[in-house]
Amino acid sequence: MKFKVSSELSYNIKSDTTFFFNIQAAQTKSQTIIEEQLVTSPGKIKIEPFDLGVRKARFLRVHVTKPGHFKINYTATVELHLKSVRFKKESDLKANTIHPDAVSYLFPSRYCQADRMYKFAEMEFKNIKTTYGKVTAICNWIYKTVHYVSGSTNANTSAIETITQREGVCRDFAHLGIVMCRALSIPARYIAAYAYQLNPPDFHACFEAYIDGKWILFDATRMVPLHGLVKIAHGYDAADTSFANIFGEADPLNVVVSCEALDKKAFENAGKKLKTISYE
Amino acid sequence: MKFKVSSELSYNIKSDTTFFFNIQAAQTKSQTIIEEQLVTSPGKIKIEPFDLGVRKARFLRVHVTKPGHFKINYTATVELHLKSVRFKKESDLKANTIHPDAVSYLFPSRYCQADRMYKFAEMEFKNIKTTYGKVTAICNWIYKTVHYVSGSTNANTSAIETITQREGVCRDFAHLGIVMCRALSIPARYIAAYAYQLNPPDFHACFEAYIDGKWILFDATRMVPLHGLVKIAHGYDAADTSFANIFGEADPLNVVVSCEALDKKAFENAGKKLKTISYE
Amino acid sequence: MKFKVSSELSYNIKSDTTFFFNIQAAQTKSQTIIEEQLVTSPGKIKIEPFDLGVRKARFLRVHVTKPGHFKINYTATVELHLKSVRFKKESDLKANTIHPDAVSYLFPSRYCQADRMYKFAEMEFKNIKTTYGKVTAICNWIYKTVHYVSGSTNANTSAIETITQREGVCRDFAHLGIVMCRALSIPARYIAAYAYQLNPPDFHACFEAYIDGKWILFDATRMVPLHGLVKIAHGYDAADTSFANIFGEADPLNVVVSCEALDKKAFENAGKKLKTISYE
Amino acid sequence: MKFKVSSELSYNIKSDTTFFFNIQAAQTKSQTIIEEQLVTSPGKIKIEPFDLGVRKARFLRVHVTKPGHFKINYTATVELHLKSVRFKKESDLKANTIHPDAVSYLFPSRYCQADRMYKFAEMEFKNIKTTYGKVTAICNWIYKTVHYVSGSTNANTSAIETITQREGVCRDFAHLGIVMCRALSIPARYIAAYAYQLNPPDFHACFEAYIDGKWILFDATRMVPLHGLVKIAHGYDAADTSFANIFGEADPLNVVVSCEALDKKAFENAGKKLKTISYE
Repeated sequence: MKFKVSSELSYNIKSDTTFFFNIQAAQTKSQTIIEEQLVTSPGKIKIEPFDLGVRKARFLRVHVTKPGHFKINYTATVELHLKSVRFKKESDLKANTIHPDAVSYLFPSRYCQADRMYKFAEMEFKNIKTTYGKVTAICNWIYKTVHYVSGSTNANTSAIETITQREGVCRDFAHLGIVMCRALSIPARYIAAYAYQLNPPDFHACFEAYIDGKWILFDATRMVPLHGLVKIAHGYDAADTSFANIFGEADPLNVVVSCEALDKKAFENAGKKLKTISYE
Repeated sequence: MKFKVSSELSYNIKSDTTFFFNIQAAQTKSQTIIEEQLVTSPGKIKIEPFDLGVRKARFLRVHVTKPGHFKINYTATVELHLKSVRFKKESDLKANTIHPDAVSYLFPSRYCQADRMYKFAEMEFKNIKTTYGKVTAICNWIYKTVHYVSGSTNANTSAIETITQREGVCRDFAHLGIVMCRALSIPARYIAAYAYQLNPPDFHACFEAYIDGKWILFDATRMVPLHGLVKIAHGYDAADTSFANIFGEADPLNVVVSCEALDKKAFENAGKKLKTISYE
Repeated sequence: MKFKVSSELSYNIKSDTTFFFNIQAAQTKSQTIIEEQLVTSPGKIKIEPFDLGVRKARFLRVHVTKPGHFKINYTATVELHLKSVRFKKESDLKANTIHPDAVSYLFPSRYCQADRMYKFAEMEFKNIKTTYGKVTAICNWIYKTVHYVSGSTNANTSAIETITQREGVCRDFAHLGIVMCRALSIPARYIAAYAYQLNPPDFHACFEAYIDGKWILFDATRMVPLHGLVKIAHGYDAADTSFANIFGEADPLNVVVSCEALDKKAFENAGKKLKTISYE
Repeated sequence: MKFKVSSELSYNIKSDTTFFFNIQAAQTKSQTIIEEQLVTSPGKIKIEPFDLGVRKARFLRVHVTKPGHFKINYTATVELHLKSVRFKKESDLKANTIHPDAVSYLFPSRYCQADRMYKFAEMEFKNIKTTYGKVTAICNWIYKTVHYVSGSTNANTSAIETITQREGVCRDFAHLGIVMCRALSIPARYIAAYAYQLNPPDFHACFEAYIDGKWILFDATRMVPLHGLVKIAHGYDAADTSFANIFGEADPLNVVVSCEALDKKAFENAGKKLKTISYE
């Protein structure tokens, strides 16, 4: 399946500003970038790419010294090679079999304070026998108890608040999924992505849980098909996967995001086969 | 300078438990491990070492299946090669010159919610002209406003609470230093260490700030000489540098830590020269 | 039914200290004080009684100037005249019928932040048709989801934290009941009491909800019979009903509380008839 | 001095709604209501007045059953009789001399969690010798460290957050003043008021501290002259003094507030004499 994704971010620069953008599609085994392009306006601004950990996030540092209007536009054609995963029955994760690379996704993070959720997670989900069953139950519980309400939360909102507040956006749904997994000793990480059929179009967030040695994709919002996600980055939570970190004085003006399937037939057919998805 | 460090952790195992221990001295350019030893009781328990990021933390995974008393003992002789650092005057960090490896230490984390501290940090410290001056002022402010009180905080306490609570332990002092640095766009990371002359002996915590391309050591507690620290790990905060993560049922029984200088004369002489220290 | 209650609080006075004690049985229509006695040690210390609102709380101000051991002992014989209340079916409280005296028990308070619980309460309990049914459902939900664990919380713990923490003591159970009622626009107040058959003996806390013009007693802990409670005070929450407020320097040494039924047969017989209780 | 005050609140009623309005000028020894008027649109809606404690707040209950536009308009002419208060030097409040009526203003409340501020308040303000000096120092400290920023906080914001956030509106300034007073064992209460010369016109909030047996007015915002305040209510904090509590479904449309001095000359002259003001 091929997708065409794009994003355009514009700002009013008030003084010398450095941006760290995190808007490029990730390069992974499951995701090939066929072509991609970055354009700024004004042009001739140096763009310095660097990775935040292998395959984790492709950051762009852009230093804008001239006040006034600034815009960055990214477009890419991306091909996904996804496989459906099947788990053996009754498998439940043991901490002694977690791959070292996954261990740090067990730790509490800024928006996912798993250290305060052990009892809650245990009472709600511990009796479910398999890891896959637990994460599925977590997603169903989130979908049932939390309302998706645009603008209901802000950049300070963390998973603990979402439990009592019972409303949020995709970012909050992802944080809540992650915090419950980690509280059950299941590594879980935050996914920033372009999402096909997201309405209204925007950056999207969901999460991956570590099950039987694989990172499996989950989205408790049920807003988009899972096989239409083009990954931008994974991280501990929204704190290290934000699409823009701004150092200086710049007012955000506009964000325009799009994600289109280049062959809708192929996409629909793939959907019939892909139930449980692992991006590698 | 050479130090002999040791730690002994004991537990009452109630059912099958996996530990991730983070108690070994780090292997860095500034810190050579001359010899080290791990002993468990009962013996013949497999210890699986793995790194959590290069030079960041040396984890040990230990899977204990037998109920009852379990003990792990680590001893090492470590040599430090420290240099004093001098900064040019008036240098203030710019986000466009931060090394990519340091960027993630700008992000908010579990116990260091820098995203909620921008205004506070700006009002208190922004007018100070150099990065080094800012971090020094932060440490002086912490020392002046926060009381060191054993047992006053717990594993949930984060930097935001310490500001109003005004008491804490070394871990809280470090978190507060880190949160203020990050809120001023200065990368900062948590340091877990053995500390010579710490009284009573225990694991210690302090922090490093990124200044002119170097990680400089700071300790707002003023409890120990900075050149007597044997690093165990650095991380975002206490969430990823805990000396033990426990998955299973095990009650902690005892923690015994020690750190001795093998040549006290050399240590004292070094103290006269080492003011601003960078561990590499 | 008659009860004999007593409490003895002792302190080590370090410097001039003023206490506000709230340990006397309340004088209400349903509760007659047959005799009561206050003794301090050392003696000859002035005790100044004053009420915090009519029938709300009987405070005692005691000013201790002499350092050293101080003890206050209260004993009383109290008679309860309780009636069982029956509600008409399908009655649901309307804000336009609440008695003005009950209105302030709708507002959020220190430990019962109802303003942050509207959505949660609505999703969990709003569909239940009667006010009595709602409060009963709230109590059942608390009993099911929160574990009673001695020492699991402290004086800072509020209802919001108990929801995620899922453990607490009688005070936390009461706060959680109150916060849910208020979030559903049902006035609710905190009750401090002596409790017959509480094991181990201690001060107890529960709550009252305003139903059909009456204050009805509820206790989500299910630890004691509702008709064995001798009320000390009601208030917004634990903030204004604490058994002792201390201004000065005094270390608490000991608290001994007791509550005995003077006629156990009468108590048992009463229990058969008293299901829904309103203290007036 | 005479003032003409008015407020007009309009709503879109979606279903049967009960309002508790708290917009009328208080009737106190220092404040005489010469005339006042309440008008609703549509008309012929029953308005039920009741007091929330003597002289504390004059609530209006209004039950609107008809969907559509609803408006309530209050106007009053109010005369103030203020006296300047002089304190003897070096007087510092003792808990054993507080009038019983003031005691409950020592307790922590929803937005003023004094129980978590003891150490902070002690370190910042305890060394100041007089109660008046302490409260003045608190106001100066708030004015210096907190920025007045419209819209920077919301109905959930409490004093603890304002300390780290360092911005807020009049309500947050008042809460911060109250929390610091209470943490120093000085009773303090929240004042809702009409304010002459407030720009832009709106409801205003400030606080009173209990000094030498009198309630003294303080306003850390320094936005309006203290002798131009027409009191609406006092309470524990914003939780029990809100200008409107809404039970039902009604969207707020508009709030228009005004406060004019009827004799500006008299007002100016009074300002020369009135420094420390006690409303009785």
